[in-house]
Amino acid sequence: MALVKWTPGTELETLRHEMEHLFERTFPKMFGYETEAEHEWRPGLDVRETEEAYVVETDLPGMAAEEITVEVEGPYVVVKGERHAEHEETKEGVKRAERRFGKFYRRVALPEAAKAEEAEARYANGVLTVTVPKAEEAKAKAITVKAA
Amino acid sequence: MALVKWTPGTELETLRHEMEHLFERTFPKMFGYETEAEHEWRPGLDVRETEEAYVVETDLPGMAAEEITVEVEGPYVVVKGERHAEHEETKEGVKRAERRFGKFYRRVALPEAAKAEEAEARYANGVLTVTVPKAEEAKAKAITVKAA
Repeated sequence: MALVKWTPGTELETLRHEMEHLFERTFPKMFGYETEAEHEWRPGLDVRETEEAYVVETDLPGMAAEEITVEVEGPYVVVKGERHAEHEETKEGVKRAERRFGKFYRRVALPEAAKAEEAEARYANGVLTVTVPKAEEAKAKAITVKAA
Repeated sequence: MALVKWTPGTELETLRHEMEHLFERTFPKMFGYETEAEHEWRPGLDVRETEEAYVVETDLPGMAAEEITVEVEGPYVVVKGERHAEHEETKEGVKRAERRFGKFYRRVALPEAAKAEEAEARYANGVLTVTVPKAEEAKAKAITVKAA
């Protein structure tokens, strides 16, 4: 359990955020938001927590770094872009097509808001890694037990 | 339609191959063959045909080339290996796990046997590309129409 500094207003902020996203989930088109469902593929994504940061890893094989966009806002990380086929193929030349191409949009919530302004994204070997450093209050603190 | 040179024995050879694989599909364990179903994940794979070769592309993000094995035998291309997680994680640190890891085995039949001995495999940017040049008789030939 992390020690979290209580900041008046945080709960209200969270409630506001949740209310917004409740509407977004219910009426995405009406609010002009993008959703995952309307995109062509859904690349696999992991979220893990280290002592210092949240790390979001997404499998995006065969892309160029400039085809990928990453946005961090509050506790949300958005990974979106479009994967193009390496080759323009006539239909006759394709014997099997299992790989996914086209537009994708993934949006995940971290367990809590982190330092968006210090987030870093790296694309290597077909994997996108987004690292968002934790805010100070989110880090678990070691408490020294003093002898009586 | 490609012009194919008739080689006595080819049909018999095909029949033998098909019979073998009928048994393999029916009783894989009994014959000691590997099957796709018993493996942990099934990476997406495309097969396309160019004028000169068959090309098999497999999405294998986040791997090292030496973790991947490619076998070409007759019309069959086998891609197998094991994907390891980049990080040893305690269960507590994992907040979302959609990406697939572990052993995989894919086996696809090309439309016809090609030059296995000249096959090439290249791994870049999370995509494995296996190129198997066509046998001479499999290439479509342009026939000059002479004026009478």
